[in-house]
Amino acid sequence: MNDKSKKPQKLKARLPRGFVDRSAADIHATNEMTAKIREVYERYGFDPVETPLFEYTDALGKFLPDSDRPNEGVFSLQDDDDQWMSLRYDLTAPLARHVAENFNEIQLPFRTYRAGYVFRNEKPGPGRFRQFMQFDADTVGAPDVSADAEMCMMMADTMEALGIKRGDYVIRVNNRKVIDGVMEATGLGGDENGNRRLGVLRAIDKLDKFGFEGVRLLLGDGRKDESGDFTKGAGLNADQIEFILGYLQGDDFHPASDLYAAGHGELQKIEALVTAAGYGEDRIKIDPSVIRGLEYYTGPVFEAELLFDVTNEKGEKVVFGSVGGGGRYDGLVSRFMGQPVPATGFSIGVSRLMTALKNLGKLGQDEVIAPVLVTVMDGDVDSMGRYQRFTQALRNEGIRAEMYQGNWKKFGNQLKYADRRGCPIAIIQGGDERAQGVVQLKDLIEGKRLSGEIEDNASWREARVAQETVPEADLVAKVKEILAAQAEDRKRAGNA
Amino acid sequence: MNDKSKKPQKLKARLPRGFVDRSAADIHATNEMTAKIREVYERYGFDPVETPLFEYTDALGKFLPDSDRPNEGVFSLQDDDDQWMSLRYDLTAPLARHVAENFNEIQLPFRTYRAGYVFRNEKPGPGRFRQFMQFDADTVGAPDVSADAEMCMMMADTMEALGIKRGDYVIRVNNRKVIDGVMEATGLGGDENGNRRLGVLRAIDKLDKFGFEGVRLLLGDGRKDESGDFTKGAGLNADQIEFILGYLQGDDFHPASDLYAAGHGELQKIEALVTAAGYGEDRIKIDPSVIRGLEYYTGPVFEAELLFDVTNEKGEKVVFGSVGGGGRYDGLVSRFMGQPVPATGFSIGVSRLMTALKNLGKLGQDEVIAPVLVTVMDGDVDSMGRYQRFTQALRNEGIRAEMYQGNWKKFGNQLKYADRRGCPIAIIQGGDERAQGVVQLKDLIEGKRLSGEIEDNASWREARVAQETVPEADLVAKVKEILAAQAEDRKRAGNA
Repeated sequence: MNDKSKKPQKLKARLPRGFVDRSAADIHATNEMTAKIREVYERYGFDPVETPLFEYTDALGKFLPDSDRPNEGVFSLQDDDDQWMSLRYDLTAPLARHVAENFNEIQLPFRTYRAGYVFRNEKPGPGRFRQFMQFDADTVGAPDVSADAEMCMMMADTMEALGIKRGDYVIRVNNRKVIDGVMEATGLGGDENGNRRLGVLRAIDKLDKFGFEGVRLLLGDGRKDESGDFTKGAGLNADQIEFILGYLQGDDFHPASDLYAAGHGELQKIEALVTAAGYGEDRIKIDPSVIRGLEYYTGPVFEAELLFDVTNEKGEKVVFGSVGGGGRYDGLVSRFMGQPVPATGFSIGVSRLMTALKNLGKLGQDEVIAPVLVTVMDGDVDSMGRYQRFTQALRNEGIRAEMYQGNWKKFGNQLKYADRRGCPIAIIQGGDERAQGVVQLKDLIEGKRLSGEIEDNASWREARVAQETVPEADLVAKVKEILAAQAEDRKRAGNA
Repeated sequence: MNDKSKKPQKLKARLPRGFVDRSAADIHATNEMTAKIREVYERYGFDPVETPLFEYTDALGKFLPDSDRPNEGVFSLQDDDDQWMSLRYDLTAPLARHVAENFNEIQLPFRTYRAGYVFRNEKPGPGRFRQFMQFDADTVGAPDVSADAEMCMMMADTMEALGIKRGDYVIRVNNRKVIDGVMEATGLGGDENGNRRLGVLRAIDKLDKFGFEGVRLLLGDGRKDESGDFTKGAGLNADQIEFILGYLQGDDFHPASDLYAAGHGELQKIEALVTAAGYGEDRIKIDPSVIRGLEYYTGPVFEAELLFDVTNEKGEKVVFGSVGGGGRYDGLVSRFMGQPVPATGFSIGVSRLMTALKNLGKLGQDEVIAPVLVTVMDGDVDSMGRYQRFTQALRNEGIRAEMYQGNWKKFGNQLKYADRRGCPIAIIQGGDERAQGVVQLKDLIEGKRLSGEIEDNASWREARVAQETVPEADLVAKVKEILAAQAEDRKRAGNA
């Protein structure tokens, strides 16, 4: 016995935490969804532009809310010339770099869209991933809030294009200037109140979840939840708390703040523009509680919210909630420039929206039919060549088909494979059939039904034979015939 | 004067070296191309599966040829639990991890495809990027070379589906066992000859470029090129060099090697299978000089080569060359498993193939029409609401349209924008038109032609008026009419 005879340590196949593989069903659903989103964006005059996944760290900037994470929530590494690069954490900061870098070639206003993966160096958890897809649209070089109004209308149209009914979604709109003005008016301006302002934003952001009483606690000393966990509050005094709650409660609220007045005026203009274009409060609604986490917003902010109930992991009914948002970021491009470059944009969380659409049964309508399986009875080169020829003949007619590529010697495995894969038809040719120049076709869908189903109402259906033998020359035509009959059955079952 | 009055240092907008942004034209072309590739793969019975961009470094393995680069050519970083993660350098190693991790749920043979970005920590250069897209297909759990034969046929079909004529491409096939057998038979086996074997592979890989005489030099002491640069050779003796050249020259070559015999037998079987399915040497060709760089291949290797000439950056005519390749990697999944899991796959370099197709004029057929521009003459909320309503009315009918979102006060800028963007129509409504309830439509395409073109052959064309005034209610119908006339003009121009 020596050391060499030891079994080598097996490598463990596992994904890094917070990353997932995507199945065929997920990929098909995503493609179906993004195609619909793209169609709306194109209609609004937007064109695609994409940036790579890496940017220089300083060009991305630090705008994520979770600054307590390593590298402030970003994946970074040092290039071999010692410069720091980061994986993008959103699609907005890279677009700002793109516009600044190509400013002389770009015709403003610049309407573009892009879908792509972004990365957050977050603590992974259920439903929280470190790589996820966003689908963004941005208008750069657009100073007026009419561009923000258009973003909101486009998002409303996108929701409806995806099959979400009017009333099941709403685009909520607010303005950073309004909130900043409110805080300023109650004595929370200035650098020394930065932490308190952050606390106020976090408290307001929880209005949906905890109601006015919860927000009141979070604006003050803090709030203890049912499990006993305590969340520290923003530490405001009683007057400040009432003032903020007055803002959230709406009407007849006019603080002495120019910033508030400017922001409020912008919201009124947005409301007038979308109303003129036929979008009522059922689609686009001004809402003082909309916050948005990213630090680069400077004006209007928006959120697309789905209003229907879903059951969460604890079995509770909850409103589905946000599937995307955005806002005006007038400072992001001008960080690179000697001049102001106003801009606004919207970002959809693709995975989250896909989950919503699956809940609504709005995805996966475009069923993918599994391939016809050409089985292998004999493994000699001549027979294999023949099976391969059958397969190619089917493919040449546009029919999904495959020759069995596993170990062919156990024929039972081939039929098990066809069954688990959902193959509609199996083609079989052994020595006897070969001698006669024929092939056997097994209708696997019909066969399954004939063997498993009690037919209490089969009057609409013409019985099919589950197995047939035809001359080689008729193979393609017969396969087409069976596939057509199966499609007809599916259609009837769908209508029934 | 104090330090605060200094102008803040402007941030420089620039991309990290070796990364690029993608334009609308490139994105449309890629989508058009990948849709065609996907259609072929689906027809062959492949389904999509995708993995994330990160993997644990040990799970990826080290199979890149350029081991002299930092981190051996891979971008890596340490997670906050101290484990090393890397960005994938291809799509094959992550698929191997995926199959091993989900082995109990996966039905073998497992046919899947995926398109995605991969990353190489390489020295960037002209046409050499550090992020690029690959489009892969793999069959895992397929022990027989009939699966390799199928990969070759699928690649040939893919080339033709993309519009590349038969004769303008060839799928070249070789076998690692054959090359290893040749080297073994001439005394280059064993660990101590690892470097020499690598030198031999690199020399053979240059046959296309330098011919037999060049390879002879590279197998021996080395080769000096025209610029005087010297490439060190593999250091073989004269007998070994003749032996290797004998292999490359083909016929009547039968070295005493079981490995060679096995590999040669596999190639003969591949040839028989593809011939039976109707694929001749004009499409799939056995070629002893095919190498492929990645270290994980264990059997047949393939390369898709485009045979037409292009002009390179030095102004020389050269054969376009490889646009993808692949091979059998029987060891890659079993690194994680206690059992053998044979597999084969093919990878297309998407950007490189796109360049080729652009050269051939096979992309960009699906022209994207720029949006209709609704101009802004007056900036009051009421007028803006009216312009927005026109815009939405067009969009609701499926017409690409946008309201001008830049600074509206300089009307000339709006028409300049429409011109540079290629807008087909501009809609104008000033105070006078508003009072009468009408809008002006400028046919920008016709206008351009009327002002710029000498019409020596206008007999087929009905003259259109470049500017018209219609009631607001007729706006959409009139826009449709002009767009239809423009489409007709384009069609006629295309046929002319």
